[in-house]
Amino acid sequence: MSGKLTVVGLGPGSAELTTPAVSRALAEATDLVGYVTYLDRVPPSPVGQRRHASDNRVEVERAREALALAAAGKSVVVVSSGDPGVFAMASALFEAVEAGEPSWRALDIRIEPGVTAMLAAAAHVGAPLGGDFCTISLSDNLKAWSTIERRLEAAAQGDFVIALYNPASVARPDQLGRAFALLQRWKSPDTLVVFVKAAGTPNAETRIARLGDADAAGADMRTLVLIGSSQTRAIERSGAAPWIYTPRSERDIA
Amino acid sequence: MSGKLTVVGLGPGSAELTTPAVSRALAEATDLVGYVTYLDRVPPSPVGQRRHASDNRVEVERAREALALAAAGKSVVVVSSGDPGVFAMASALFEAVEAGEPSWRALDIRIEPGVTAMLAAAAHVGAPLGGDFCTISLSDNLKAWSTIERRLEAAAQGDFVIALYNPASVARPDQLGRAFALLQRWKSPDTLVVFVKAAGTPNAETRIARLGDADAAGADMRTLVLIGSSQTRAIERSGAAPWIYTPRSERDIA
Repeated sequence: MSGKLTVVGLGPGSAELTTPAVSRALAEATDLVGYVTYLDRVPPSPVGQRRHASDNRVEVERAREALALAAAGKSVVVVSSGDPGVFAMASALFEAVEAGEPSWRALDIRIEPGVTAMLAAAAHVGAPLGGDFCTISLSDNLKAWSTIERRLEAAAQGDFVIALYNPASVARPDQLGRAFALLQRWKSPDTLVVFVKAAGTPNAETRIARLGDADAAGADMRTLVLIGSSQTRAIERSGAAPWIYTPRSERDIA
Repeated sequence: MSGKLTVVGLGPGSAELTTPAVSRALAEATDLVGYVTYLDRVPPSPVGQRRHASDNRVEVERAREALALAAAGKSVVVVSSGDPGVFAMASALFEAVEAGEPSWRALDIRIEPGVTAMLAAAAHVGAPLGGDFCTISLSDNLKAWSTIERRLEAAAQGDFVIALYNPASVARPDQLGRAFALLQRWKSPDTLVVFVKAAGTPNAETRIARLGDADAAGADMRTLVLIGSSQTRAIERSGAAPWIYTPRSERDIA
């Protein structure tokens, strides 16, 4: 088969955070496949290029469509936000490969990494991911809530910084509040919590709280939530939001 | 103070993975500060630009130098590899701010995110980070080995995918072997392990093993090690390395 399929991550929002490797892959594609909101972020190509837009939440169908196009000889790019390998399209693509046509395994499939949302969110406030950290999606569409609870507990026991993706949605308004309640059993109420909405865009909004009274209501699907370790600290500044960071070294080993 | 300080991440290696935002910050700087190996990756600037190169392992001294330059009115860029907030210069910078001149808190300090090594490493083999994951540095220069053990154990108990930075060095040749031995107490010997050397460069080398007989000897400071969760799978292919991925959904909840 001569077709080619590349899964790219546009980065978290601003075109300035899209890597040149991704921009080149997009420019060279004959066919773009992706969630309509992400396709709208791709600049028009000077060469004729077909766009196959789909709704959210049809990841495997979208992956199958992309694989079929590649198998037909097209040069296909599947468009994700952030990094394609972190709660995005790359896994869905390989799920489709594994369950699909045996011939799809002979395709030239590549993944082009990108800046995932937690990195941009952290950069807005300082360096909260400076120590060891865990990255957890709070969406229970595809895994049991008990698995999420088990992982939150393990992350707290290990005193990791915690990055939460998909903290809330219209269908799941209570997930983040339940996560905070669970973490409060293990972590100090003084633990720093950072909410970043629209990370990596000019419209990013940050909010800093303490776990003991953090209000989960302000988070939506575009919010990234970072919860500090015992070491995560605030540097106060006059007339500006504090910088939040996790030192590389331990001061008081918990 | 009119000075400005930006900490940037060049990405894991190839210039094609450096974001346009980082390239612009580099081009606009009057002074570049960084480990000599990373400064050598920055293209020469058409305008006169001073380069302040330092050895590895002097992060806080380097950060102080950068802050003093910014306080003197320069437009300073501190150069990191990967993402500056993940086991890199951003934390060292804020450590220096917190312990340093009070006036440094009034500086315009920004962090420009980048593609961190684990994302590029994952992309080379498929989508191993497709589920929840933990990111741990095995370096015990700045934290106790007992903390690392506690975190490895927590990561295993939570059935996270695990990304290990700094798995070994000349001074610490045994860390990775000790980490594997610890994880073997908790995780199946069939757990997939991926070694990626020089991730995000044209010279990247990948090796796939199982935890039960993974050989730690092949890893050095340029190696990123990914250890699967119970869900991480291989898609076999004829005549090519398998793709490794972690499905978004759980098949057998451990």
